[in-house]
Amino acid sequence: MSEVIARYAYRAKLPARETAEKIALESSTVIWKYKNRDLRKKHAARVVSATKNGATIAFPLENFGCSITKMLSAVAGEGVFYSGAAENVELADVQLPASFLRGFKGPAFGVAGIRKRLRVYKRPLFCGVVKPNIGLKPAEFAQLAYEGLAGGLDMVKDDEMQADESYSRLAQRVRLTMRALHKAEQETGEKKLYVANITDDADNIAELHDVVTENGGNAAMLNAFPAGITSASLVPKTIPLMAHFTVSASCTRIAPHVLTLLQRIAGFDIIGNPGLGKRMGSDAAKVMANAKACRGKLGSLRPSLPAFGGSDSAKTLSRYSFLGNDVMIIMGGGVYGHPRGARAGAESVRDAWLRR
Amino acid sequence: MSEVIARYAYRAKLPARETAEKIALESSTVIWKYKNRDLRKKHAARVVSATKNGATIAFPLENFGCSITKMLSAVAGEGVFYSGAAENVELADVQLPASFLRGFKGPAFGVAGIRKRLRVYKRPLFCGVVKPNIGLKPAEFAQLAYEGLAGGLDMVKDDEMQADESYSRLAQRVRLTMRALHKAEQETGEKKLYVANITDDADNIAELHDVVTENGGNAAMLNAFPAGITSASLVPKTIPLMAHFTVSASCTRIAPHVLTLLQRIAGFDIIGNPGLGKRMGSDAAKVMANAKACRGKLGSLRPSLPAFGGSDSAKTLSRYSFLGNDVMIIMGGGVYGHPRGARAGAESVRDAWLRR
Repeated sequence: MSEVIARYAYRAKLPARETAEKIALESSTVIWKYKNRDLRKKHAARVVSATKNGATIAFPLENFGCSITKMLSAVAGEGVFYSGAAENVELADVQLPASFLRGFKGPAFGVAGIRKRLRVYKRPLFCGVVKPNIGLKPAEFAQLAYEGLAGGLDMVKDDEMQADESYSRLAQRVRLTMRALHKAEQETGEKKLYVANITDDADNIAELHDVVTENGGNAAMLNAFPAGITSASLVPKTIPLMAHFTVSASCTRIAPHVLTLLQRIAGFDIIGNPGLGKRMGSDAAKVMANAKACRGKLGSLRPSLPAFGGSDSAKTLSRYSFLGNDVMIIMGGGVYGHPRGARAGAESVRDAWLRR
Repeated sequence: MSEVIARYAYRAKLPARETAEKIALESSTVIWKYKNRDLRKKHAARVVSATKNGATIAFPLENFGCSITKMLSAVAGEGVFYSGAAENVELADVQLPASFLRGFKGPAFGVAGIRKRLRVYKRPLFCGVVKPNIGLKPAEFAQLAYEGLAGGLDMVKDDEMQADESYSRLAQRVRLTMRALHKAEQETGEKKLYVANITDDADNIAELHDVVTENGGNAAMLNAFPAGITSASLVPKTIPLMAHFTVSASCTRIAPHVLTLLQRIAGFDIIGNPGLGKRMGSDAAKVMANAKACRGKLGSLRPSLPAFGGSDSAKTLSRYSFLGNDVMIIMGGGVYGHPRGARAGAESVRDAWLRR
């Protein structure tokens, strides 16, 4: 029988085993008897190990099937957080069986697909968040995008707070930015991507994806946490899809790399994560855990490209060298706040990479 | 100019005003200059007030428009949680202008619509979560549903961990449960509702809503947090829609009543919240804040019916009397764990209400 294995960190309020048993029961067969038939035999979650500081619990896949939403509803649900048996419960890790993963296609393009589109194989990918963004007109945005791409960025992207807005309609921004992108491609002889933000309430997401593709756009982005981790399933995946991590910092009781892993299964090709440093509270271990969730072996699913940001620049590029090449470095202020402009900012990044 | 007003609680790391200004800037016009044009005039978030322990900040509606997902991406986004200016940031409250609310229809049925369907006007509504559930066959489920409804429940509902499952397909469960429901209606002379759980990954939700209505179902439920707060927008709202709160306890940096308010705007008719008591860590103030988010004035949007659970029973019914009548009390073990069976459990609840 297939099982989802969840690891929890908590402070037990009852003896170690009893605490874990209570959480397992509350998250599966709470009331278990029907006319003397014991439903626990097939459906109870099973305690694998337990200490005062946490437990590993196995959930029968049959309880929820191949659905991220339903799996989370059990594994990080009411029973887990309100069992009364433990304090400060956190879902620290999750292992998903092949039979769960087979229910998903995962990233349609993944690392290899994005590299193929960009024809860049042996270095990290450099992405600039076009800034300023809020309030900027589409033609101005396209001009800034051009400067970053001409300077050596592989991709430019919308900020997480800029999608289809009254001050910059997505259709026009995509049309003008793609024109600028093609100009930069011709001048540099390199391929480029523009990641257009299609974030909106659930009923608008598919339509905004159409707006991007119908206007020649070649990549899209969703704020996966507020839009829903499985919102990727609402779009046809005809172009690479990126997830941005905004709002996810509000979710402190599910470990960040678990959210990243679920976004990969849900089908995001590029997954944005908090970057290194004090500002985002991420050390090398946290960054590596998110990278591993994107790139580690996961059934037959393609790896997603892990992306890290936080206003990085040429100066800070070497901080990410421990991640190897299959990574996307996202620069905001590092390129678009450069004292000599975005083109110079992008050039400084490519230059720093060559001299590393 | 319309603004969304957000109140934050935090520990400032810089002087009070400076901290708030930094958060406001990071959440709006971070880099603000384009060819000497100042984009802040129209688009910068504005500090209304600030102390060492928090701030009130006003966001121009034009920055994100009428979208819950995009509004959250700014108001509870990267800039708020990673500005570096404050620790332990929580979005404590949010006030939404009429021009934002006008973008939403809110609950299609709301309190009045549900009361009209049930023809119950002057008392709380009693709902039983059919238990056991995981592993139980549809015919057995329908039998238990019948017993609770015949005993005096107004509604029965699926558990949050039971939707369209291999051990109990939704179509068959809805068909058999509605037959049982109609039998209970005939016997009691009362109208009843069965809340069928249509939770799944985003691309399946609309289809499962169809499964419910095509099989005669008269209410549906989504686990709104893991499915996405705006997942209600994926269904046609031809029958009342309930939100369950599972997984939302993982989100500790957005106040619970803010999540409840957003679910009402998104269109849920009934919104489940953690119940009173130690198990769910909710005191009367927290319960009232959630009830107010459901029932308080909110533009021209209908009120949602606030629902509270936690294995309540006849014995604990009076605990909720401070909420008045417009409330749904959800009973699991209180009815379905009753020593003389579900029918007796439901009768004890109605009885307790009459004797209160």
